[in-house]
Amino acid sequence: MRVGFIGLGAMGVPMALNLVKAGHTVRGFDLRPGAADALVAAGGGAASSAVDAAHDAELLWLMVVSGEQAESVLFDHGAAATLPQGAIVGMGCTQAPEHAMRTAARLSAMGLHALDAPVSGGTKGANAAALTIMCSGDEAVLQRARPVLDAMGSRIFDCGRAAGMGSTAKMINQLLCGVHIAAAAEAMHLAERAGVSTATMHEIISVSAGNSWMWGDRGPRMMQSDPPVTSAVDIFVKDLGIVLGEGRALKAGLPLSAAAMQMFLAASGLGHGAADDSQVIRAYRALNGAGAKR
Amino acid sequence: MRVGFIGLGAMGVPMALNLVKAGHTVRGFDLRPGAADALVAAGGGAASSAVDAAHDAELLWLMVVSGEQAESVLFDHGAAATLPQGAIVGMGCTQAPEHAMRTAARLSAMGLHALDAPVSGGTKGANAAALTIMCSGDEAVLQRARPVLDAMGSRIFDCGRAAGMGSTAKMINQLLCGVHIAAAAEAMHLAERAGVSTATMHEIISVSAGNSWMWGDRGPRMMQSDPPVTSAVDIFVKDLGIVLGEGRALKAGLPLSAAAMQMFLAASGLGHGAADDSQVIRAYRALNGAGAKR
Repeated sequence: MRVGFIGLGAMGVPMALNLVKAGHTVRGFDLRPGAADALVAAGGGAASSAVDAAHDAELLWLMVVSGEQAESVLFDHGAAATLPQGAIVGMGCTQAPEHAMRTAARLSAMGLHALDAPVSGGTKGANAAALTIMCSGDEAVLQRARPVLDAMGSRIFDCGRAAGMGSTAKMINQLLCGVHIAAAAEAMHLAERAGVSTATMHEIISVSAGNSWMWGDRGPRMMQSDPPVTSAVDIFVKDLGIVLGEGRALKAGLPLSAAAMQMFLAASGLGHGAADDSQVIRAYRALNGAGAKR
Repeated sequence: MRVGFIGLGAMGVPMALNLVKAGHTVRGFDLRPGAADALVAAGGGAASSAVDAAHDAELLWLMVVSGEQAESVLFDHGAAATLPQGAIVGMGCTQAPEHAMRTAARLSAMGLHALDAPVSGGTKGANAAALTIMCSGDEAVLQRARPVLDAMGSRIFDCGRAAGMGSTAKMINQLLCGVHIAAAAEAMHLAERAGVSTATMHEIISVSAGNSWMWGDRGPRMMQSDPPVTSAVDIFVKDLGIVLGEGRALKAGLPLSAAAMQMFLAASGLGHGAADDSQVIRAYRALNGAGAKR
């Protein structure tokens, strides 16, 4: 397929490269100069603007950082108006379900097809073409987009017909991720407090019913004082913000998400917003004191 | 070893049977008549009382339901006074760390050795001799008890010298279990609310970063209206009660555990205390209404 690809960041570059590998014609754009170099080296093309990337594309894939950016690219910068009638817009970004629904309706009124298609799996999954992609949209649109989805992901889920369902699924995953990171920090902090070895604790939980994917991944970094940043505290301020906004829109109280959000907010307020999200544990230490009490 | 075994319930019976299989001499006691039948059939003995089980034992294993029951058996019913000097008391029950410390101190004053040794792994782990056992106590005592521990569990962790450390490790596991069950219910409820298929959602999360052991185990039962009870709501009212009591003793605020506790308490208050703990989702439905809003 002829694919326009907007957003060549840590996720976007390997995804676009996998599209080229699978035989698609890819033209990429990113505001940062040089972002398309790897794509061009691999046989893809560099577009000079969002409009240029949209020109003549059968599918425009948006790998930007938010629903606001997606809207801006599509409507303010004219990508949507440039796309040929009947083209598909794949929204790979994490955004509020309400946002995805609104953008899909605007695209539909212009004769374009939206595919709500947020991804999960990080740069590791992006590199390995092993992303999880949570799709919603018309069945025929999903079928047409399938060769593109299969080139980037290994698990393509059909979450339903209405735009917003894919984003809802992603949001629910983020709810669990955020709560599990904060819960891991709460548990690690309690171990510190009670004077139990956090290393032994990590080993025990990893083979017990209290285990989570996040415990395995973030737990070791909670034991480091200044770990490398794989995903920042402020990303969860954003993602749990989407979760709680959606809870508000649906009139649903979400007490654990709300409690977790306070800890990420506090960590950010303490000046650790750009730190690795495992460092939400610093909010616990600030709250209760950092020393052992036994 | 000559082992007295008190508490022949769903966990206790298979644990005692595994001790017999490993060649230990086991005499079991439980208040319920007939509880020792399977043990006797397998070549073990039935004790007529807690004192009788303690008589001449090198190790007394307590598989009762609480620290209060352990204390009652040991001190009110005279098991501790009956044990030979230098005998080991293995406390396999889930109890507050403070409780384990107090009982250990009383046993020590009587010339006995406490091994704080709560277990994890459920009846499945008990049957398969594959329990996780979180031990703390004197190193020499742990070494002496090792053949008994190895006959019941496959992962024996040394959590430190002080009694209470094993119970702290178990409590931290329970913190994560309780928060993860409530988080799974919160996520499932939000999916219901937003009109996303809970079955698809379960499939997505099971291969995503939001996954937890509890999501895999309890998630499917959350989708049933009246699932079989594998562990009751009120067990988590008890276990999160221990967690929060310990947080109070250590002066440590635990916001996620506190929020999860409220949901288990509410489920219990709604009359579902004896229901499967997956049914904490009913507290969410009561809180927000059960219908889809999209």
